[in-house]
Amino acid sequence: MTKFSALAHTYGTPLYLYDFDSITHKFSALKDVFKARKSLICFAVKSNSNLSVLKHMAHLGAGCDCVSIGEVKRALLAGIPKYKIIFSGVGKRDDEIEEALRNDILMLNLESEEEMKRVEIIAQKLGVVARISIRVNPNIDPKTHPYISTGLHENKFGVDIESAKRMYIHAKNSASLDPVGIHFHIGSQITDVNPFKEAADVLANLVRNLKALKIDIKFFDVGGGIGIQYKEEETIALYDYAQSIFAALGGLDVTLVCEPGRYLVGDCGYFLTKVLYEKYNGFKRFVIVDGAMNDLIRPSLYQAYHAIEVEGKEGTEKSLCDVVGPVCESGDFLAKNIELPALEHDDILVVKSAGAYGFTMSSNYNTRMRVAEVALENGEDRLIRRRETFEDVIALEKEYL
Amino acid sequence: MTKFSALAHTYGTPLYLYDFDSITHKFSALKDVFKARKSLICFAVKSNSNLSVLKHMAHLGAGCDCVSIGEVKRALLAGIPKYKIIFSGVGKRDDEIEEALRNDILMLNLESEEEMKRVEIIAQKLGVVARISIRVNPNIDPKTHPYISTGLHENKFGVDIESAKRMYIHAKNSASLDPVGIHFHIGSQITDVNPFKEAADVLANLVRNLKALKIDIKFFDVGGGIGIQYKEEETIALYDYAQSIFAALGGLDVTLVCEPGRYLVGDCGYFLTKVLYEKYNGFKRFVIVDGAMNDLIRPSLYQAYHAIEVEGKEGTEKSLCDVVGPVCESGDFLAKNIELPALEHDDILVVKSAGAYGFTMSSNYNTRMRVAEVALENGEDRLIRRRETFEDVIALEKEYL
Repeated sequence: MTKFSALAHTYGTPLYLYDFDSITHKFSALKDVFKARKSLICFAVKSNSNLSVLKHMAHLGAGCDCVSIGEVKRALLAGIPKYKIIFSGVGKRDDEIEEALRNDILMLNLESEEEMKRVEIIAQKLGVVARISIRVNPNIDPKTHPYISTGLHENKFGVDIESAKRMYIHAKNSASLDPVGIHFHIGSQITDVNPFKEAADVLANLVRNLKALKIDIKFFDVGGGIGIQYKEEETIALYDYAQSIFAALGGLDVTLVCEPGRYLVGDCGYFLTKVLYEKYNGFKRFVIVDGAMNDLIRPSLYQAYHAIEVEGKEGTEKSLCDVVGPVCESGDFLAKNIELPALEHDDILVVKSAGAYGFTMSSNYNTRMRVAEVALENGEDRLIRRRETFEDVIALEKEYL
Repeated sequence: MTKFSALAHTYGTPLYLYDFDSITHKFSALKDVFKARKSLICFAVKSNSNLSVLKHMAHLGAGCDCVSIGEVKRALLAGIPKYKIIFSGVGKRDDEIEEALRNDILMLNLESEEEMKRVEIIAQKLGVVARISIRVNPNIDPKTHPYISTGLHENKFGVDIESAKRMYIHAKNSASLDPVGIHFHIGSQITDVNPFKEAADVLANLVRNLKALKIDIKFFDVGGGIGIQYKEEETIALYDYAQSIFAALGGLDVTLVCEPGRYLVGDCGYFLTKVLYEKYNGFKRFVIVDGAMNDLIRPSLYQAYHAIEVEGKEGTEKSLCDVVGPVCESGDFLAKNIELPALEHDDILVVKSAGAYGFTMSSNYNTRMRVAEVALENGEDRLIRRRETFEDVIALEKEYL
C-alpha cells in the first residue's frame, strides 16, 4: 500500500495531513533570509489554527499573528510566549480587547481611529498601557483575488497615512497607549515582490517622519501574503523579498516582523479523499468523492486551484473530469476540468497545497462531520484532532430538544 | 427597548432567530394548495438542521429530505417518522446507505447507476429490499445562481431519461430493489413557475411510460427550490405552482412529494449583529459589526443580498455603506453599498431572510465561536442551541497537544 493510502486506511477519509518537517524547512528558509536583522516571524493562525501546529511553531521560535481572542488563547495554550503574540483585525469586540490587554501580549494592531478610542478607554479602565501598532493602508494593488486583496482604499483594512500620523500623535500623548509598531498587510497569495517593496518604502518613510516627532517605532511589521505554488505560479524568491524590505528600512533600528500563514503551511498540507463513484452523464465525467465543499471551501469560494494526484496509477491513460463531493450544490467541487486516470470505488485522491485555509474554514454543512487532522513528523504520523461524531455535532442543541 | 434589541441583550450577539409561528404559516399555505391530492412535504434539512426546527416540522406533519446520514439521524431524533424520511444526494458512502436501510426510511433518492449498484449490493448483504427513487435530470435551466442550479446536464446531479428507464427496469428485476419513486430537483431559489412545469411534464410522461412496463411509481417528488423574496424578486404564486404540477400529473395515482427548505424557513429567520465601529476611510463608509462571513457566508459565497434593518432609527438620514465583519478578508461582508442611518457602538442590525443556509453553513474560521440559535413561538423566546465556548472549539484537539 502506498503512503497516502495507508494513512487513509488508518485514519479514515476525508482527512487533513500536515508535514511538520516541511513546515520546519519553510520556517528556517524565511528566518535565514532575515538573519541580517532582528526579526520575529509571527505565524498567521487563521491559516491553520490546530493546537499541535501552533505548538510546532512555538518550538521553531515563531510568534503568532492572531485575529480574534480565540486565536490568542489558542496561541497561549500551545506555548507561544505572550511577548510574541500580536492581535490584529478590523473588528475587535470590547471583551476581546480587554482580554488581550490582561494577557499582556506584544501589541494590538489597530485598524481605525474609532478602534484606538475603544482600546484607550479599556486600557484606562484596566490601569494598563496598551502597546499598539497601526495598520497603514498604502493603497497598493497586490494583484491577487479580490477577496484576499486588502491594501486598497476600497478595502475595510487599515488607515491612510495622514490618519495614521494623527493616530500616532494621539497615542504618544495618551497615558494609556504606547505606539510601538507599524504594520501593513496588502493581501494574500502574492507572487510579485514589487508590491511588498512599494509598501515597505511608503511605511519606512512614515517611520522616519515619526522619528522627527519623537515617536520611536520599534516593530516594523510587513504582514504576510507570500504566495505559494498551487498551479504554475512564479513564486517570490525569499532572498529578493528580504532584500527589498532591508533596502526600504535603510539604517532604521527596528525589529522586522513578518506574518506568514499560507507560506509556512500551505504546501505542507494534503487533503485525502476517497472515490465513491465515477459517473458519466453522456456529456461530462464526474468523479464523486467523499470530501466536499464543507471540508475544503477554497475551490468554491475563491475558484482556487488545487492539484490532485492519485497514487499507484502512474502511466494510466487520463481523461478530463470534475471532482465533486456529496454536498447538494453545483458549487460543491474540488476541481473542474482536470485530467485524472480511470478511478474505482475506494481509490484515494491526494488534494495538494491544502495546509492553509483548509480545515480552519470547514463547516458542518449538510450535517457532515468535520474531518480528522494528522501530523507527519520524523517519519511518524499521529492524530492531532479526532474526527467529529454525530454526538459532537448535536451536543449544543440536543439539550434544548 | 425594541424587540430585537431586547433579544440581543438577553442572548448576546451575533445571534440567529427563527420565528416558528411564521414557519407554521408557510407550511400550512403550501399544504393547502396541495389539498386536492395526497401529498407529503419533506423539509430540506440542509437549509436549517437545528433539532428544534426539525421537531417543529414533525409537529406540523412534515417529513424530511436528508442529504447525509447525519441529517437522517437528526430527523429521527427530532421525531420525524421513518416513513416520512427521504435520503438524497450524489455521494452516499457505503456506511450511510447501510444505516439508512437499517433504519427503514421511506426511500433513497438515487443519482447514478453506479450508486444503484452499491445500494443493491448493500441491501442484498443486509437481506432487505431497498425502496428507491431515481433523480431524473430534465436538462431545464432554472435561471438561478450557477452554484444552486442543479437540473442541467453540466451539473453532477441525477441521470438523463434514458438512463433512468434502464435503471427502473434493472430495479424492477432486482430482488433487492423496489422502485417506488421518481424525483427531480432543478435548483434552488427559483422565482418562475415555468421550469417546474416543464420538469413535471417530462417526468409525468416518464411515469406513464414506466406504467406500460408494469413499473408502478407511487411517489412523484418535485424537489424543492421555491424562491423567497430577498430583495424585490417576484416570487411564485403557490396556487399556480401546485396547479401546474397537478396539470402535468393528470390522472396519475401518485403521492406528490415536495422538498422545500428555503421556502419554509428562509424569511422566518433573522441574524442579529452588533455595531462595533463605524469607519470612514476618506473613500468609503464601513459599518464594522460583530457578525462575519463565518456566521453567514451567503453574501461572500453567492453574492447574495440580505436586507438589513436598524430598529429605532426610522426617519434618520441614511447614507451608503458596506457592512463588514471582523474576519481578515475583503470577502468578509454582509452587505455592500446599502443605505443605513448613522450608527453607534452597540447598535443592533437585523439581517433579514437568514433562516435558510445561515447557521448550517457557519464555521469556526478565525477561531470565532459559532453563535446561539433562538426560537420565537407564541410570543415567547427560547434558546435552541447555545453559543459555543473556546473550550467547545478546541475540545477535539486539546487532548493531542
